[in-house]
Amino acid sequence: MNLEKIYSYINTHQERHFEKLKKMLLQPSVSPQNIGITQCAELLSTFFKDLNCETEIFETDGNPVVYGKYDAGAEKTLLVYFMYDTQPYDEPGWTHPPMEAALAPLELPSGTVTALFNRGTINTKGPMMTFLNAVESVQNTEGLPFNLLLVAEGEEELGSPHLPDFVAARKKELQKADACIFPFFLQNTKGKATLDLGVKGIIYFELECSGKEWGRGPTEFGIHGSNKAWVDSPAWRLIHALSTLTEDNGNTVVIDHFYDDVAPPSPEDETLIKKLVETFDPEPFKETMKVRKFVIDEKDREALIKKLLYTSTLNINGIWGGYIGEGSKTLLPHKVTAKIDIRLVPNQERDKMLPLVRNYLDKKGYKDLKIKVLDVGYKWSKVSVNEPVVQAMIRTCRNYGYEPEIWPHLAGSAPFYLFSDVLGIPYVMGALGHGARAHSPDEYIVYKGNDKVLGLDGAQKSMVAFFDEWLKG
Amino acid sequence: MNLEKIYSYINTHQERHFEKLKKMLLQPSVSPQNIGITQCAELLSTFFKDLNCETEIFETDGNPVVYGKYDAGAEKTLLVYFMYDTQPYDEPGWTHPPMEAALAPLELPSGTVTALFNRGTINTKGPMMTFLNAVESVQNTEGLPFNLLLVAEGEEELGSPHLPDFVAARKKELQKADACIFPFFLQNTKGKATLDLGVKGIIYFELECSGKEWGRGPTEFGIHGSNKAWVDSPAWRLIHALSTLTEDNGNTVVIDHFYDDVAPPSPEDETLIKKLVETFDPEPFKETMKVRKFVIDEKDREALIKKLLYTSTLNINGIWGGYIGEGSKTLLPHKVTAKIDIRLVPNQERDKMLPLVRNYLDKKGYKDLKIKVLDVGYKWSKVSVNEPVVQAMIRTCRNYGYEPEIWPHLAGSAPFYLFSDVLGIPYVMGALGHGARAHSPDEYIVYKGNDKVLGLDGAQKSMVAFFDEWLKG
Repeated sequence: MNLEKIYSYINTHQERHFEKLKKMLLQPSVSPQNIGITQCAELLSTFFKDLNCETEIFETDGNPVVYGKYDAGAEKTLLVYFMYDTQPYDEPGWTHPPMEAALAPLELPSGTVTALFNRGTINTKGPMMTFLNAVESVQNTEGLPFNLLLVAEGEEELGSPHLPDFVAARKKELQKADACIFPFFLQNTKGKATLDLGVKGIIYFELECSGKEWGRGPTEFGIHGSNKAWVDSPAWRLIHALSTLTEDNGNTVVIDHFYDDVAPPSPEDETLIKKLVETFDPEPFKETMKVRKFVIDEKDREALIKKLLYTSTLNINGIWGGYIGEGSKTLLPHKVTAKIDIRLVPNQERDKMLPLVRNYLDKKGYKDLKIKVLDVGYKWSKVSVNEPVVQAMIRTCRNYGYEPEIWPHLAGSAPFYLFSDVLGIPYVMGALGHGARAHSPDEYIVYKGNDKVLGLDGAQKSMVAFFDEWLKG
Repeated sequence: MNLEKIYSYINTHQERHFEKLKKMLLQPSVSPQNIGITQCAELLSTFFKDLNCETEIFETDGNPVVYGKYDAGAEKTLLVYFMYDTQPYDEPGWTHPPMEAALAPLELPSGTVTALFNRGTINTKGPMMTFLNAVESVQNTEGLPFNLLLVAEGEEELGSPHLPDFVAARKKELQKADACIFPFFLQNTKGKATLDLGVKGIIYFELECSGKEWGRGPTEFGIHGSNKAWVDSPAWRLIHALSTLTEDNGNTVVIDHFYDDVAPPSPEDETLIKKLVETFDPEPFKETMKVRKFVIDEKDREALIKKLLYTSTLNINGIWGGYIGEGSKTLLPHKVTAKIDIRLVPNQERDKMLPLVRNYLDKKGYKDLKIKVLDVGYKWSKVSVNEPVVQAMIRTCRNYGYEPEIWPHLAGSAPFYLFSDVLGIPYVMGALGHGARAHSPDEYIVYKGNDKVLGLDGAQKSMVAFFDEWLKG
């Protein structure tokens, strides 16, 4: 591939590419609140068509999958996984408006950059449009020398409940791909590139205590708080039930058999971790996320990495019930609910975990507490560092002067098991670029970079450079 | 007093009185959310002026006290305590609109009535307007044979933080009163009248756990839930902290010395309870409040009554933190808060309770948890059944054919200590009439009654009848 020619195209089309990105960002697509999904799917399908893809809006029982096929008549086929949905943006704490694609200077440890603030910038509309713009740049210069299968789901933030249906329906076609890529930005605030070779699994549910199910306390509505003297409290019940699930530190889960299937790091993982320890620096994470301390002493880097990667967690994402407005309304609530997720590590099985929670609650006398599954969940997934597509991304980083930090897997979750386990295709995340605060206020990506962190044009070029490396094999 | 003449006036002015009540109900006055307070105070002052009262809007550091004086040149003076503020009305569960003064049939165990649904109907704009309309009816027929001191505060639902300032400023004037009345409806769904001779005290506070104060967990905003593996959780911390405060049942408080000052029922109380046991029926409460079971077996009526009246409680009015919207956003919250109140019984002292909570939390290792006092709180208060004003209300009920059930005190709270302890004036609640669901959806009073429960006209007449009995001494 004639990289210089393609890079020159990218240089002269920055404005056009930014306008396309903005259009995508300003189109809400909040799957947890069902805002703008259909419109976003349609917008994305026009972007696929612009790249001369045979495009289909694949309807599911939930949000549609936007599916694009580009047949270059080439030998190799790249499967691309996108998510076009985002988290909600109505939480407090945004200092930039969450849906106005605001550009503003941002101080990073590597120097000042111009950041683009919007819900969905890093997670993952920024990387998605970077990929599509990179493809356009190749197509409009020397033509794309490989085939594309573009799969964009609108339910990643819901746990991808219907992506398995799509994969089952198009399995034969999808299995022709040689490799899969999930466009993402690999750089941190200091410019270091990090490559994650997998993800944890996840199950997400609500745990609810209500007077109705319990048969005690108020059953239909909250009642005057003075009645606490002679009427039981579902709020206190949920608190005591929750408190039985972990040790006092809130970190060690004490549900019977919860950790039984947790495997130690594999020999390949151990090798990767030994290398990782040399370069891993927790400071950028602490700075960006405003975290001062970890659950263990950070000086033992190996232990800290293993804590992050090999810990199966029980997290309270939210809890609510009763009067939560201003002031001092007295109320005995009839219902209190917690949103909880379990992260799964090798070799925990999805289907085994909720029964463990149920059995434990039953044993502790909380049979009336309702478990309402919100996400069917993901299995964990891993890919070997030796896969050619992974090696191609590593070489791409090195060519840019970044020795990538290789992580055996990510602490987060994504439906990658559909590629690795169901389709049997190796995958990689990339390319270069930086963004942060997924799921938090002031989510951003870097628009204009500095010496260390690539901006959007650099990110597009690195995506093209990856194409080149991958074709080389 | 020529009661027949006054009752006839009430009969012919029902529409006028209902319009005045509606005007008061439709004027929002939500003190916890600061909605409509000033307008409601002004509206009420016009009602006072209509009764030829010398009227003052007494400004405080919070909401004004509306103060009205009517000098009949009479021997006796009645001090009237009103609250013109209400709870919020934005909670779900209203089947009638909360601010449209909707009239609708309601099935009560005593038969069908026409009920008036609105926030503040029973708590306490309905009884307030009943009193004012009763006074008007006496004034416009044979003239009022006693003096009035009308005190209406707009911060009862906030714990009356500034009523003590008003009482201190007007103490000399107020102390001239012979007795005090808090207009309220004494009848339950079956028509039985209940008289409460006092109230519990209350303290209201928020207990907050934040990463910022703790120095662990996310400190500034919620972060991606996958970080639970290596970052601590303020949500789990609050849950574990709360769980140390009560036994598993959520009823028995285990804070050191929490119950130390709880006194057994006085001899007068024991006598009242013995009588109460004969007539007390928990069914109407259970039916209205949709409560199936009490914290103890209800068959032992004496124990149940004592449980309600002599239990100091620690109630969770609400709890919230993290992601509480639809769906499955994964988040590690940085802050979680619970709204808690303590109800005080004789002889617990207000100022001693919060230090007990603080010391206990500190002892358990939760020094970072913040206690934010929302209400300075009330002291508990009691009045003897032998007070002439109480006896007058009892005779009023009997004259109507209702043998009132006398309760040594209420489980709820009100700033009555200002009358009993600060001013040294006995008080009573009344008159007849019925309403329910204070602080809950579908709060109502009975507009047109049945054989057992008085409607609004009957409630007004019973208030006039009380005036007559009280004047008799």
